[in-house]
Amino acid sequence: MAQEIERKFLLKNAQWRGLAEGVVYRQGYLCASPERTVRVRIVGDQGYLTVKGATLGMVRSEYEYTIPLADAREMLDTLCPQPQIEKKRYTIPYHGCIWEVDEFSGLNQGLVVAEIELTSEDQPFDRPEWIGREVTGEMRYYNAALCITPYTTWKPES
Amino acid sequence: MAQEIERKFLLKNAQWRGLAEGVVYRQGYLCASPERTVRVRIVGDQGYLTVKGATLGMVRSEYEYTIPLADAREMLDTLCPQPQIEKKRYTIPYHGCIWEVDEFSGLNQGLVVAEIELTSEDQPFDRPEWIGREVTGEMRYYNAALCITPYTTWKPES
Repeated sequence: MAQEIERKFLLKNAQWRGLAEGVVYRQGYLCASPERTVRVRIVGDQGYLTVKGATLGMVRSEYEYTIPLADAREMLDTLCPQPQIEKKRYTIPYHGCIWEVDEFSGLNQGLVVAEIELTSEDQPFDRPEWIGREVTGEMRYYNAALCITPYTTWKPES
Repeated sequence: MAQEIERKFLLKNAQWRGLAEGVVYRQGYLCASPERTVRVRIVGDQGYLTVKGATLGMVRSEYEYTIPLADAREMLDTLCPQPQIEKKRYTIPYHGCIWEVDEFSGLNQGLVVAEIELTSEDQPFDRPEWIGREVTGEMRYYNAALCITPYTTWKPES
């Protein structure tokens, strides 16, 4: 089975900036339930259709297919509910691993998260100095959840 | 935009039988709302992932992609809710058009519907003698609806 094993973190400071060029991502969801999501994504000139299963800890089944840009654009414009996700992704290598820092815009402006994809749940990895609190498993930080309850609408944490 | 223009009919009699070989279809839905469906389908050794929009009359947006058989099987087995659709499809040419007769099994045993795909809403076509009442637009005959409320659970029509 295609699997995604991922850990997600907040950022402690802005020292990651300047380490990579940002690439614009646009994405929306044809369905977004806890059991499964179907995502339409545009990165540059490429469209993607991605099916993901329920998250069990840090593991999730994932099936990703490239699709024509025009199809992705039409599905985002006509089929995926609003609001959608707009973000810039910065891909930063660090000590043999790849960190993806997502800087959100639009209704999720102000939110920045970093993800690392692992090959097993217990794979050790070094944390860059700019990595903050781990939020793996916190549903509200999932992109599908950010479409429904965007970051700028969150109530201050008590 | 990719569009599907389709009319759907019940069968008046069994004279369609023997006009074509049946091919086994298995399909389930990652999402099935009136606004959009995402279907996983297996036909023979080929998997398909298909996104459809809301039906407006007999017109519907449709985006279909081939996917590996193993992916389709896993998604049907692990991600798509039960019950799913099992049917045999018979493809029957008639006076320059193609009729698809779907004979359902499993929880939809007993249901047979015929569909014709058109290139425009007002395209004329000849009806074979075995075509019965039109059910275009009757939601309960949609495959996505038949997963939720299978034919064998329908109450007798009053």
